[in-house]
Amino acid sequence: MPLSDTAEPATTLSPTLELAIDLMRRPSVTPDDAGCQDVMIERLERLGFHVQRLPFGDVVNFWAVRGHHGPVLAFAGHTDVVPSGPESQWHTPPFAPQINAEGELCGRGAADMKGSLAAMITAVERFVAAHPEHDGRLAFLITSDEEGPARDGTRAVVEHLREAHERLDYCIVGEPSSTARLGDVIKNGRRGSLGGVLHVHGVQGHVAYPHLARNPIHDAAPALDALCREHWDAGNDFFPATSFQISNIRSGTGATNVIPGELEVVFNFRYSTEVTHEQLRERTEAILDAHGLDYRLDWTLNGEPFLTAEGDLIEATLAGVEEIVGQRPELSTAGGTSDGRFIATLGSQVVELGPLNATIHKVNERVRAADLDTLSRIYETIMRRLFT
Amino acid sequence: MPLSDTAEPATTLSPTLELAIDLMRRPSVTPDDAGCQDVMIERLERLGFHVQRLPFGDVVNFWAVRGHHGPVLAFAGHTDVVPSGPESQWHTPPFAPQINAEGELCGRGAADMKGSLAAMITAVERFVAAHPEHDGRLAFLITSDEEGPARDGTRAVVEHLREAHERLDYCIVGEPSSTARLGDVIKNGRRGSLGGVLHVHGVQGHVAYPHLARNPIHDAAPALDALCREHWDAGNDFFPATSFQISNIRSGTGATNVIPGELEVVFNFRYSTEVTHEQLRERTEAILDAHGLDYRLDWTLNGEPFLTAEGDLIEATLAGVEEIVGQRPELSTAGGTSDGRFIATLGSQVVELGPLNATIHKVNERVRAADLDTLSRIYETIMRRLFT
Repeated sequence: MPLSDTAEPATTLSPTLELAIDLMRRPSVTPDDAGCQDVMIERLERLGFHVQRLPFGDVVNFWAVRGHHGPVLAFAGHTDVVPSGPESQWHTPPFAPQINAEGELCGRGAADMKGSLAAMITAVERFVAAHPEHDGRLAFLITSDEEGPARDGTRAVVEHLREAHERLDYCIVGEPSSTARLGDVIKNGRRGSLGGVLHVHGVQGHVAYPHLARNPIHDAAPALDALCREHWDAGNDFFPATSFQISNIRSGTGATNVIPGELEVVFNFRYSTEVTHEQLRERTEAILDAHGLDYRLDWTLNGEPFLTAEGDLIEATLAGVEEIVGQRPELSTAGGTSDGRFIATLGSQVVELGPLNATIHKVNERVRAADLDTLSRIYETIMRRLFT
Repeated sequence: MPLSDTAEPATTLSPTLELAIDLMRRPSVTPDDAGCQDVMIERLERLGFHVQRLPFGDVVNFWAVRGHHGPVLAFAGHTDVVPSGPESQWHTPPFAPQINAEGELCGRGAADMKGSLAAMITAVERFVAAHPEHDGRLAFLITSDEEGPARDGTRAVVEHLREAHERLDYCIVGEPSSTARLGDVIKNGRRGSLGGVLHVHGVQGHVAYPHLARNPIHDAAPALDALCREHWDAGNDFFPATSFQISNIRSGTGATNVIPGELEVVFNFRYSTEVTHEQLRERTEAILDAHGLDYRLDWTLNGEPFLTAEGDLIEATLAGVEEIVGQRPELSTAGGTSDGRFIATLGSQVVELGPLNATIHKVNERVRAADLDTLSRIYETIMRRLFT
């Protein structure tokens, strides 16, 4: 049953779980924040944070800072969640969070990433209580559009910070980075993402008269094969080799006796720091040109790769996780993109550290309840290592 | 204005044009015959033809024979026409035939192929009047489904003739074979048509995790390139080289970050008599297998190639056209399929000879009115050369 209907379970919940549940009850599907940021802002202002609300379009964001001097450590995250998917497949209602018999906190956002937000807030509360005059500055960079177009969210806030010459030295993003147990993996970078939409032009005609037509599928076949075979780079110590993938291909009128006049190919690069997006564009076009294709190619740079290879933040995070869970995390740059790509453009050291990601974006999203308390202690330890 | 509204133009029309107009007034869109075959049958019975009506499904057909001994020369054709298309684009109503100021007979079916049917009937009428005791036997094989599925039309009639052990030595199909002037081209065969639908199976996944997926587009690219490059044969004196064309290709979920799980490729062979459809299947599958594809491939044999390389019918046709128009026709096997593919399976010599095909299946279908009279004289001459 929902926790709100029980007689006195609140007495058994930690402040982190209480806050996580409070946030998860709010159905903040992108870009709706559903009041989550108000809850966070109230807690942060009580701690002496100076809060700037930064709405852009229909997205609400805020930037909060505590302290006046020294390096800035920001906790970054998002209050929005992906839609629940078919509610009938949920064992518990997606927006009525519950702790099940296995001790798992169940509901949309448990892992991605209201659990992390709650852990950040309670960690800061304990840290400030213990070190009201801490070194450096603490900050929060929170958006309600990470799961959506991500234009008016962290990207816009980062542009605001850049124009305001705000400092952002260290950033911990609360994305669920863990895979098998809490803290086993932290992300210290992400690959770049470059998208392309290729239109190969041919001449439509009847299959019985191929000499009067020009089949764009036939024209493109060797070029596509060459693109699939191309060795773009070998990766490096931090990144796997750059990957090229065709996601969609489409040509044809539906009729079986017509040679089509146009082929559309949609592809995506996930690329390492060994190449630039300019190089990938040039090399792709060189391959297409070498095959004599008549084409148009439209590019979209979704995000450049970023990497925090070393530094104070990585050191404090590795040591902090090891101190609390007894094992040093693995560094990884695998997986999709995150808002870290925007923050890294400020020159910040960025790590992503959060709960297990096994159930994110799925029905029955859940996380071990105890992990959120542990995560809060890890965040607190990192602050202590950097700012005391 | 429509001919039916004029005072006395009928007096200026030849019997061939009168009959063509009578047939064209009937809107016999596949498989509707709209009474055309009744008109033909009445004329043929008057000449002493023995007529067998052979309806199959919603298609009407007939087989008519005159004479009792010797080789059979059949005129073959169809009373059905393709739809008119947008009537607003016609300069004259599609089913109200008119002769325009340029002396062209305009209306659906003028060229494909009610004009030919009229020329056949009047040619036979004159020939029988002049040679009531002609050698051999004359026949008609007429269907109302050549432009449609072509299952219950000539194909079914041919099966009936085969089972009845009917003889069919020579066949003139009235398809519009001429290109620049009447009789410049006759078809003495057609390429085969073999269709394939290929499904390449992969494993769907996220573009950020290509090692967990298997991209069927990438798997198939080298195999498709190999199929496009393959030299299937060199053709021969009568056929161009076998042609492979991909008509449709489709893969992808629409999302740009998803590696698709399945690729569909629709292709078609137009093939010469230098290969068999069995060989094409084997060679295609060998190429797919050599590339290690996981696939399903469904084949459709639309028609085997046929060829009348030489013989009495070709000789009589070449000489007959030359006698009437003063120029020897070119032999060709180019273009799409025709009902000749079915008739040839009886071991018949088959030629296609008809008016210019420039406007067939288009709006404003038309043919030089005088050409139909000339065509009738050519048909008559061929009969004379074979059967007197």
